[in-house]
Amino acid sequence: MTVRIGAIGLGRLGYQHAWNLRFAIPGVELVALCDANEEKLRATATAWGVKRTYADFEAMIAGDGLDAVVITSPSHLHTAQIAAALERGLHVFSEKPLGTTVDECRIAEAAVARFPERVFMLGFMRRYDPSYAYAKKMVAEGQIGKPILFRGYSQDPERAIAGAIAYAGHSGGQFIDMAVHDIDLARWFMGADPKTIFAIGGCYAHPEFGQYKDGDNVAALMQLENDAMVFLFAGRTAPHGYNVETEIIGTQGTLRIASVPQKNLVEILDPQGVRRECSQDFLERFGDAYRNEMVEFVRCINEGRKPEVSVYDGTKCTQIAYLCKEAFETNQLVRL
Amino acid sequence: MTVRIGAIGLGRLGYQHAWNLRFAIPGVELVALCDANEEKLRATATAWGVKRTYADFEAMIAGDGLDAVVITSPSHLHTAQIAAALERGLHVFSEKPLGTTVDECRIAEAAVARFPERVFMLGFMRRYDPSYAYAKKMVAEGQIGKPILFRGYSQDPERAIAGAIAYAGHSGGQFIDMAVHDIDLARWFMGADPKTIFAIGGCYAHPEFGQYKDGDNVAALMQLENDAMVFLFAGRTAPHGYNVETEIIGTQGTLRIASVPQKNLVEILDPQGVRRECSQDFLERFGDAYRNEMVEFVRCINEGRKPEVSVYDGTKCTQIAYLCKEAFETNQLVRL
Amino acid sequence: MTVRIGAIGLGRLGYQHAWNLRFAIPGVELVALCDANEEKLRATATAWGVKRTYADFEAMIAGDGLDAVVITSPSHLHTAQIAAALERGLHVFSEKPLGTTVDECRIAEAAVARFPERVFMLGFMRRYDPSYAYAKKMVAEGQIGKPILFRGYSQDPERAIAGAIAYAGHSGGQFIDMAVHDIDLARWFMGADPKTIFAIGGCYAHPEFGQYKDGDNVAALMQLENDAMVFLFAGRTAPHGYNVETEIIGTQGTLRIASVPQKNLVEILDPQGVRRECSQDFLERFGDAYRNEMVEFVRCINEGRKPEVSVYDGTKCTQIAYLCKEAFETNQLVRL
Amino acid sequence: MTVRIGAIGLGRLGYQHAWNLRFAIPGVELVALCDANEEKLRATATAWGVKRTYADFEAMIAGDGLDAVVITSPSHLHTAQIAAALERGLHVFSEKPLGTTVDECRIAEAAVARFPERVFMLGFMRRYDPSYAYAKKMVAEGQIGKPILFRGYSQDPERAIAGAIAYAGHSGGQFIDMAVHDIDLARWFMGADPKTIFAIGGCYAHPEFGQYKDGDNVAALMQLENDAMVFLFAGRTAPHGYNVETEIIGTQGTLRIASVPQKNLVEILDPQGVRRECSQDFLERFGDAYRNEMVEFVRCINEGRKPEVSVYDGTKCTQIAYLCKEAFETNQLVRL
Repeated sequence: MTVRIGAIGLGRLGYQHAWNLRFAIPGVELVALCDANEEKLRATATAWGVKRTYADFEAMIAGDGLDAVVITSPSHLHTAQIAAALERGLHVFSEKPLGTTVDECRIAEAAVARFPERVFMLGFMRRYDPSYAYAKKMVAEGQIGKPILFRGYSQDPERAIAGAIAYAGHSGGQFIDMAVHDIDLARWFMGADPKTIFAIGGCYAHPEFGQYKDGDNVAALMQLENDAMVFLFAGRTAPHGYNVETEIIGTQGTLRIASVPQKNLVEILDPQGVRRECSQDFLERFGDAYRNEMVEFVRCINEGRKPEVSVYDGTKCTQIAYLCKEAFETNQLVRL
Repeated sequence: MTVRIGAIGLGRLGYQHAWNLRFAIPGVELVALCDANEEKLRATATAWGVKRTYADFEAMIAGDGLDAVVITSPSHLHTAQIAAALERGLHVFSEKPLGTTVDECRIAEAAVARFPERVFMLGFMRRYDPSYAYAKKMVAEGQIGKPILFRGYSQDPERAIAGAIAYAGHSGGQFIDMAVHDIDLARWFMGADPKTIFAIGGCYAHPEFGQYKDGDNVAALMQLENDAMVFLFAGRTAPHGYNVETEIIGTQGTLRIASVPQKNLVEILDPQGVRRECSQDFLERFGDAYRNEMVEFVRCINEGRKPEVSVYDGTKCTQIAYLCKEAFETNQLVRL
Repeated sequence: MTVRIGAIGLGRLGYQHAWNLRFAIPGVELVALCDANEEKLRATATAWGVKRTYADFEAMIAGDGLDAVVITSPSHLHTAQIAAALERGLHVFSEKPLGTTVDECRIAEAAVARFPERVFMLGFMRRYDPSYAYAKKMVAEGQIGKPILFRGYSQDPERAIAGAIAYAGHSGGQFIDMAVHDIDLARWFMGADPKTIFAIGGCYAHPEFGQYKDGDNVAALMQLENDAMVFLFAGRTAPHGYNVETEIIGTQGTLRIASVPQKNLVEILDPQGVRRECSQDFLERFGDAYRNEMVEFVRCINEGRKPEVSVYDGTKCTQIAYLCKEAFETNQLVRL
Repeated sequence: MTVRIGAIGLGRLGYQHAWNLRFAIPGVELVALCDANEEKLRATATAWGVKRTYADFEAMIAGDGLDAVVITSPSHLHTAQIAAALERGLHVFSEKPLGTTVDECRIAEAAVARFPERVFMLGFMRRYDPSYAYAKKMVAEGQIGKPILFRGYSQDPERAIAGAIAYAGHSGGQFIDMAVHDIDLARWFMGADPKTIFAIGGCYAHPEFGQYKDGDNVAALMQLENDAMVFLFAGRTAPHGYNVETEIIGTQGTLRIASVPQKNLVEILDPQGVRRECSQDFLERFGDAYRNEMVEFVRCINEGRKPEVSVYDGTKCTQIAYLCKEAFETNQLVRL
């Protein structure tokens, strides 16, 4: 009944996942931790009373005593670790992206297909945010009629720009690193894949992204196979904070999720006007979602069912993000 | 058909009324202007092409050629001017307050009663603001059920404090100068007069008001004869701007009018958060209301009917404001 | 000093323009009215005391006694009437669109160029809305840094769909009839013309638009010559009302104008939640703007200067709208 | 290090507390459950794997193996259970109210005073809501200057009225049952106790409350010893949902917490307008606060310190609530 989990990766998000598994997810025992940073690994394990620690993922999954792994390692390691863990008979939760190329994604797809009795879940956490889940239910019930336009914004705050520039050579670019979440949401809400993609953008504040054929702010317009429209905007220079905002326009109603990134329920009236402060990063905005997705992972294991997010969603979103990048780089319309 | 109007008072609001009469109110001819400031009087009349100017109200109404007067003179002159104009057979619009004491108000009441065929209108302009009028209609139609609580805020911006202090000896204090508008709204929306009044407050930032037995911020709680409740707050120190905000809680719904004093429809997202700038004074907030009430005044004259705001409303609101002040000064419950 | 104006067109907007000229615009005398509907023409002229009426535009401008004309006739008549009035030495205000084709626009351009001492103004009224004007000032002052993305929505309410379908053969389609206002705003705020355009859309609720190679909801993504991005959305099926919403994302701040189409300042708390009712048509939303632009037209005449909106803006916006339509019809990227 | 807790009470809130202790609070072991409902007790204990169950509180605390108790029993049992548990050497968390009379509260106070080395915490959970905590920090830092007015609303939804009426004979009334939370907040934010209290209200929809000398909606206006003002409103008939809303007006700024009771971050645009759905009960609104206060309780135990909410706060709030009730019943001003 209790699911024994080993977690790899103690970076910012990995640490949060591990903390949740240790303290905030019912029915879980965090039995092993793995990270290349030996000091952090030891300190964390000691503080939390986790007995087994590993510098090496293979070693962690080699022994007995694990039912599942949670992977928050560097992106290019994901697919190999997914495949290895599945081979060992473990259930697997992997952070996004599934892989850094479509080919890598295919490796994960094949592994998941070979072990249909295992649970595999991909960390598209937004689907597990209470507001997105509520909106999805309304759309599924037909409350907004036929979806016409999906608009998704993903903006990181300007104050985090140094890290974004430092990481720019590895991130895959704004479409692959940021807009991929919106691509997942668009497919989920609108129920179709794109048939045409156009993308533009530029370096409006930070020319450094240019060397990676990327912009600091980019946008894409897609038409889906069911003719619905998708507009995506991803940017690194938001002065106000971490802004993830979604709109779904339908024939009978429109939904907006987090149309302003309110930090909390406090409204301030002062010489600047009437204002709300803004959330500043993904952990602040999506803390509940990260917990909820892990609860769902554990439930899927216990109930022998599959999560809504499939490995195929991971591949497809990666593919679409790459096509956005291709449209952006070539300044050509891309047709699927 | 065209109503020939003489206007007295070219202070801030008086000038606006006169401008509206000259340029923005259909069916009106502004034929005379009256003000003690000769230079301003002449300059205004010349610029607008108004032929007749007067330093003296009696002189303005003495001759022929006027159908009505609009009075925006100092408050203590209102009732005498109202009576004099009515005696001359003129229709009268007077700015609030009706008078500076209840006794003065009785003089105006008596004059209005003597000339029932004349139109008399008092400048409780909020009733003619489109949002207040819309809310009133909803309440009258029963859309919020039975009214339970009326909450009215009237806050002047801190940046106008010097003028408020300079004027404090003549204004009658926060209840009489500011809250009187909320008293009118409360009676209008809730449909009853108070039976008990309690009032408190203090000088939280500006001790200067203390010498007039007043506070810079004051509040009152009243119970009406129909048991509904009224909470009033009036303050001189709003850091964000001119804030007039009203809430009506009913058994079936609640209405809020201008719950934040938005300056316009622009929303700003910047390092301060997500914000709206605020309106800064009564002309900015109630420009439409000042126009609409004058349109209604002219219509009443042409259609031979009485405006909704009666002279009696003026007396009653003044009386209630004085009782609030009494409750505040004595720190006792006042019963009517 | 007083500007004598003849107005043509007593349709919904034309009537409003004429009413404003008669009653609400300082310094104007409405001396002539022209409309094909003889009954409406006579009734209006009588009610307002306008002496001269015409069934024919040429007749109206033939005589003396006019300084300017205000044209709100059917769109295909605009350019000929503009040219004729200018030839007669009159100042001209024309409703948008300048013309129904780019060639027609060139006719108006040439006429305006021939009479440089005359005032010509085109009715892109949004620029004269207080909120848009406020936002423009902020952008011009650099308060949001360098503009990155302009997003413009123009949605008509579903409840007006019958009229939109009836008019669909003449309107030129959503880009030309609706999005043209957003195209003007985009050029105005972003300070550049497009270099690439992609457009999509469809008939999501009303297949009737298909016969005109149009959709009931359409969108376009453009890149401007300064690399800034423009996203436009125009729809005919908004369930909530008349929604004109604009966002300008800059490197230092973001502005949103009318991010929700609030009808007034009343907020309602009831079993549906906390809500604002919505504005339902262009006159409700842009009443102030229609007045303000006319005030500006008169001022330009009196002060001998040109309005900010030029005839060239009209041509350029028409051209861009046609290119959007071309992109939509061909499903190809259009490059300028 | 792990704190072993026994929890009494499996009603709606008690169950939630117990669930949190079992699954969501780090460093806790839920070792015993106590409830009079044997069936519910057994089912819950079995489902969660809690070994010890008790029908009787005394029995639960009699044995060894407990470090602390969490009390969510009927209100009139609180003080006796608090005293008994402290006598047994246990740390105690008790739900509000501390007691149902001031005399009962004194019993708890005395017990807490006898065992100064034990942690006693009272469930004024709002202080642990992230938004209230954020606002408190701002006020403490002087960001809004000197506090002038505290406004606190506590409204239960009309749809829960049947339960409220059934419970009316035991609840103590709106001031004691509902407004007590706002009294705690007012003292916490404003830093002073009341010196004068006036209270009114009535049965606007449900005469049943009249037999308990209570209203379905009530209000109080207080002046504090530092002259700041407090306005409280408590109602049972909110049509829109569970509305807990607080405003703190200061000389330099105003804060509003949850000025509308938004259910989530979804905004809906449909024929009703632009709206947010509302939270419907205390668990939905304050789920985080209930968790956070328990985390703080456990931390206080482990760190050997006292929580910010003292037993004295409980007595004082109860006393003030009773004085509000007295003012309401007698229709007299109450002075402390």
